Amino acid sequence: MAKQIVVQKFGGTSVGSPEKIKAVANRTANLLSNDKSVVIVVSAMGNTTNQLVELTKEITQNPNPREYDALVSTGENISASLLAMSFQEIGIDAISLTGAQAGIQTQDLHAKAKILTIKTDRIKKELDSNKVVVITGFQGINPNADITTIGRGGSDTSAVALAAALDCSECEIFTDVDGVYTTDPRKVKDAKKLNEVSYEEMLEMASLGATVLHPRAVECAKENKITLHVRSSFELIEGTRVKEVNQLEVSKPVTGVAINENEAIISMIRVPNKPGIAGDIFKELADNGINVDMIIQNVLEDKKSNNISFSIHEDDLEQTLNITKSISEKLNCSVLHDTSIAKISCVGIGMISKPGTAAKMFSALGRESINILRITTSEIKISCAIEQKDAHKAIEILHKEFDLA
Amino acid sequence: MAKQIVVQKFGGTSVGSPEKIKAVANRTANLLSNDKSVVIVVSAMGNTTNQLVELTKEITQNPNPREYDALVSTGENISASLLAMSFQEIGIDAISLTGAQAGIQTQDLHAKAKILTIKTDRIKKELDSNKVVVITGFQGINPNADITTIGRGGSDTSAVALAAALDCSECEIFTDVDGVYTTDPRKVKDAKKLNEVSYEEMLEMASLGATVLHPRAVECAKENKITLHVRSSFELIEGTRVKEVNQLEVSKPVTGVAINENEAIISMIRVPNKPGIAGDIFKELADNGINVDMIIQNVLEDKKSNNISFSIHEDDLEQTLNITKSISEKLNCSVLHDTSIAKISCVGIGMISKPGTAAKMFSALGRESINILRITTSEIKISCAIEQKDAHKAIEILHKEFDLA
Repeated sequence: MAKQIVVQKFGGTSVGSPEKIKAVANRTANLLSNDKSVVIVVSAMGNTTNQLVELTKEITQNPNPREYDALVSTGENISASLLAMSFQEIGIDAISLTGAQAGIQTQDLHAKAKILTIKTDRIKKELDSNKVVVITGFQGINPNADITTIGRGGSDTSAVALAAALDCSECEIFTDVDGVYTTDPRKVKDAKKLNEVSYEEMLEMASLGATVLHPRAVECAKENKITLHVRSSFELIEGTRVKEVNQLEVSKPVTGVAINENEAIISMIRVPNKPGIAGDIFKELADNGINVDMIIQNVLEDKKSNNISFSIHEDDLEQTLNITKSISEKLNCSVLHDTSIAKISCVGIGMISKPGTAAKMFSALGRESINILRITTSEIKISCAIEQKDAHKAIEILHKEFDLA
Repeated sequence: MAKQIVVQKFGGTSVGSPEKIKAVANRTANLLSNDKSVVIVVSAMGNTTNQLVELTKEITQNPNPREYDALVSTGENISASLLAMSFQEIGIDAISLTGAQAGIQTQDLHAKAKILTIKTDRIKKELDSNKVVVITGFQGINPNADITTIGRGGSDTSAVALAAALDCSECEIFTDVDGVYTTDPRKVKDAKKLNEVSYEEMLEMASLGATVLHPRAVECAKENKITLHVRSSFELIEGTRVKEVNQLEVSKPVTGVAINENEAIISMIRVPNKPGIAGDIFKELADNGINVDMIIQNVLEDKKSNNISFSIHEDDLEQTLNITKSISEKLNCSVLHDTSIAKISCVGIGMISKPGTAAKMFSALGRESINILRITTSEIKISCAIEQKDAHKAIEILHKEFDLA
């Protein structure tokens, strides 16, 4: 009988030192049994990727994407080899595979390539010879045999894609927190761990700043019907399962409150009011892989021009300013930006069937004199941009208001 | 017309920091011309390989060779990408290739694989599109697509093998010294730089402790008739050419004096005097890739047993002791070792036609009361093991005696 394959992903803090890497090997070793094969996906050790980026910065402010990928991917190669050695040291046969060796084929795009397919022959061969297979997260190979990286949240996505390619029903994501909470437990004392959460809710929460899982990984899991088990690397307790949740079980309108303090708002002032211009702007941002949120456009009194504003992740600020400024020069308009905002969001499948959730959220913030700068909504979430100084108070209020403790 | 291809190798100290890497790019850029294509082979940055080895040691004292190679090879990946970026930063098109991407195929052996063949298609394609091609030294790929490393002196050998595969007549080895000297210039003030030296002499000198070139690289150059130009990374001066030297030009019996203080002597005492035993011992050492030198065997008075002793590189001491001790247990003999010796050697093609060189060397050492512990000779070298404390005095004496200043 074929063994069941388990895919486990360990993030950078979980493999942050040789000691921690040994602990990961010991932890997995204790759970090994004759009816299971284990595939482990690792991120780079703690600060390694940042150190490599620093080296790059001493050479160039604008590194060639192919070389950048070749460079930063070495971080995962190091942690994967060290973890394989740690297994061997305690008598467990193991092997490390790079993205290329594991058959992870991506688009011909650097820094943010998408995984196209995984040729699992080598992985299966090594599993069949009873090895623990340690695979580098975050990286793959393009049709030219060049190393690619798959962008933010890459290792989570690698793990889910591998679980899908290997026909697993569950993928374990080991991290430095022990699950998904109703809100950030570092900020709100009463935050409560959820036993399970739907893909849709997790997707909204992940997009909105809950850093335990990257939205791409959640999307990939939903697409492939893989349950994600988010759990602690350090404690042997159950975490949170992200899965298809039966609507009948939903009783509360809001499952969680998310906060994102790393947003920036870009405003393009007096953009000529001609058809197609907004499309051009957002197409160029999309072509550069920049995710845009909270778009607001309003026609000015003269009817000849618009103000267009939108929010982005702060990491994309420099690139976004370059793009929008080059467009605005052509259009003779101006560009402003603001990084002093926070985005706070209520997320819950239950709000579909329970009207009035938005009103309740706005009133709660209003009672505490927290000014709402902009609002966006989806079927299962309501987000407000507020001033960063009000952020902590806002999540505490909303966490109480929706009875999440 | 096809451009001439130039292969340049830069060692670890030459690429020891981002600043130095930029200097390498600038140096090569200044010498670029329309009729030349450049391939650069790099070692890992300064101390990187040692740092990776330290990480390994925190996990295991006995790393799996495949994982070890996967780990340490990342050092060259980092320097190659950074150097390619440095070229791009100054407007020169460049690309880094790993051993695998450059088609460097090796034996299916780890830590000390030999290069079997180089499939140059990718390199030529990149050169044809006018890129400087930066290739990781020290590494290749085996038939299973696993990363291999090619052992000590690896990057020099990579460079020479690439020069051969690309039909070059010369390979430039950039290093932290400006050429090959009559003896170690850090130890003898009067040491003189040689304009050229024969492969045979360089081979003996390299084997004997002159660290500018690894003997494997010299052997590979001799085999493929490639001139090695050993020169400074930091100064724009001509170095030393290692090449076929016409015997007619040779006037002195000794070209250089080499010293190696990293030797150890192993003695196996009272080995049973039966045919085949010495063969067994040295076969097992060879199978483990340990180079043995200065073998002395003498039958004891009882005619029933031998003492066998030989010298090795100190780096191989632990492994050699493991091997010899396991053999000696079976044979009921004992093993001693001594690391307090130095090996001093006179090398020169001229000594073939000039008898009396050995006598001159022994007399010079004798006059200064330097005790000779053992002697070995080849056609073009005479080596003596002496006590380490006498080493510096000995090279000064011999350097003068053979009129090398």
